[in-house]
Amino acid sequence: MNVGGKHYRTIWLKDGDAHVVQLIDQRWLPHSFVIEEVATTAQMVTAIHEMHVRGAGLIGAAAGYGMYLAALEGVERGCLDANLTSSAVSLKAARPTAVNLSWAVDRQLEEMRRALNPQQKLARALATAMAIAEEDAAYCRRIGQHGVALIEEIAQRKNGKPVNVLTHCNAGWLAFVDHGSATAPIYAAHEAGLAVHVWVDETRPRNQGSKLTAWELGQHGVPHTVITDNAGGHLMQRGEVDIVIVGTDRTTYTGDVANKIGTYLKALAAADSNVPFYVALPSSSFDWQIKDGLREIPIEQREPDEVKHADGWADGRQIEVRITPEGSAAANYGFDVTPARLVTGLITERGICQANEQSILALFPEHAP
Amino acid sequence: MNVGGKHYRTIWLKDGDAHVVQLIDQRWLPHSFVIEEVATTAQMVTAIHEMHVRGAGLIGAAAGYGMYLAALEGVERGCLDANLTSSAVSLKAARPTAVNLSWAVDRQLEEMRRALNPQQKLARALATAMAIAEEDAAYCRRIGQHGVALIEEIAQRKNGKPVNVLTHCNAGWLAFVDHGSATAPIYAAHEAGLAVHVWVDETRPRNQGSKLTAWELGQHGVPHTVITDNAGGHLMQRGEVDIVIVGTDRTTYTGDVANKIGTYLKALAAADSNVPFYVALPSSSFDWQIKDGLREIPIEQREPDEVKHADGWADGRQIEVRITPEGSAAANYGFDVTPARLVTGLITERGICQANEQSILALFPEHAP
Repeated sequence: MNVGGKHYRTIWLKDGDAHVVQLIDQRWLPHSFVIEEVATTAQMVTAIHEMHVRGAGLIGAAAGYGMYLAALEGVERGCLDANLTSSAVSLKAARPTAVNLSWAVDRQLEEMRRALNPQQKLARALATAMAIAEEDAAYCRRIGQHGVALIEEIAQRKNGKPVNVLTHCNAGWLAFVDHGSATAPIYAAHEAGLAVHVWVDETRPRNQGSKLTAWELGQHGVPHTVITDNAGGHLMQRGEVDIVIVGTDRTTYTGDVANKIGTYLKALAAADSNVPFYVALPSSSFDWQIKDGLREIPIEQREPDEVKHADGWADGRQIEVRITPEGSAAANYGFDVTPARLVTGLITERGICQANEQSILALFPEHAP
Repeated sequence: MNVGGKHYRTIWLKDGDAHVVQLIDQRWLPHSFVIEEVATTAQMVTAIHEMHVRGAGLIGAAAGYGMYLAALEGVERGCLDANLTSSAVSLKAARPTAVNLSWAVDRQLEEMRRALNPQQKLARALATAMAIAEEDAAYCRRIGQHGVALIEEIAQRKNGKPVNVLTHCNAGWLAFVDHGSATAPIYAAHEAGLAVHVWVDETRPRNQGSKLTAWELGQHGVPHTVITDNAGGHLMQRGEVDIVIVGTDRTTYTGDVANKIGTYLKALAAADSNVPFYVALPSSSFDWQIKDGLREIPIEQREPDEVKHADGWADGRQIEVRITPEGSAAANYGFDVTPARLVTGLITERGICQANEQSILALFPEHAP
């Protein structure tokens, strides 16, 4: 997607120097646009661990490139296999709960295992890193192609008035390599010349909405308005939201959706006001083992300090301010589970299905028991 | 309620100097506890206008004392009636939408109109200012006495485990003269030795929850945990909330509840998880004219800058940080309306009733048509 009129992905091989990976360091958004150069696996581990990059798809792509850098280092030092083994361990440990991380590392190891010599392994590592990134972008693009039909249908009855989409957190291109999941139908609609406007939930405590989603929509020229997490229900009640599209961290094969904390509240409001509530996801976000999302998906409790503070920009620098009394405790639940009954449909790279076992498995029959 | 072990109200006549009103300047909470001395009507207008004091009940009490200061000034300068007239105008204009403000000013004017001479008027003004404050505290105390029964009932089936109450925004003693509305049953339960724990919604964008409610509960020794506005639905889904109690800015005689933006989302979640959802209010918050809250209650849109910023404490001072990109728009809806169907009951100074016309008018028959 565009930044300042120029097309970017979130991660790429440096032009003219195949020893360096470049990525957007998201820690400084929306206040500064910083491109980081990553030349070693250790630097990539840091970039993942300290959340210079985040989001399921992007973490997978970063791990893929991380393993390529490990192969480069291994060949240069003449200790390829040992370096791959130790790099795989450190990359996987960088964000232990991120499924895409170990998936990408294992895919690289498997590809290289089948190569005959170090040079071939290196070539395979590069090709695989690029393939992981390309596939991520291609899946998201297809989610956009399927999802845009929903926006087109609403646009037809709005007589040129913008279609109002509400989204929560950042399931944008910054969470993937390009396009994003929840944002892919929005970008596709914008490209197709449909009038679209996005209500961006702030998404406390980390504010991925007001920081990342607002920034990427703004850079790409998509009209949007930031609102507090409290406002979406009121907007739906008053007919100001035509469709809700969110992403997901994990969706069961029965259609229960784990996503950023607060998603469930928006799903309830959508149901109460008959607003369609869609979840966009590449199939890698399905959990084919879990039947009951509410009972079986563990909900991560994060550092209470995130709730006790807000960070932003003042006096020309990033500052974290405390917003609670010194003596007050805080709790920080990272995700919630939206039951399938509140989900109108799922937008995947293969098409749109209902949030139930039958409809999901019809689209992904290879996962049928 | 207590602050640092000492009992305070939000506003009072200075001990030993009946020419000075003292109040807690809430702008610096929770970071500094500042008591302001107000000796002129002009200072009281500023205190109301710039929100040193806020909250329906407290604004009424402040306006009552403001008119007493106007009488003092008028008597000293020998221009009592002129001073009362002009002071009434400036006090009413300090927060134009606050119903309690003009109600208190008019009550003072009416009381003084019936007095025979300046000294009698002054005496009446003082007595009326104190009566307004006393009545506010007494009504809130009665709300607590009625509401505590709900907490007691839950406590009986919890075997000594704390009763978990969720509240939104600040309908605490800081919004009234003492006790608060939503907090009154909580303080009453705490006094009665019942184990009670409060989930405090942060309440973006102005953070009255994390700043004011958390502070006042902490000072009074009530266990509490601050959460983001996104978290309440998840907690209710998991059985971590036994009862929701919120305040209201205006409730129709049919039971529709206008309150701080985000209240509706919590009511939806409570209904979805069978958690009782109560609204606590002195009868002055009923609107006896409006039948359909969703259609007839206008929703104030406030300054978008509140959404674009967060303010808190860093480097030993209060700092406002920007949390959105420079180019992004923001919208700031102040309130939402929770339909009566989602409200389990209303806790008033006369007792608890259901959120419907028949039940409300049975408790307040003088307002029956």
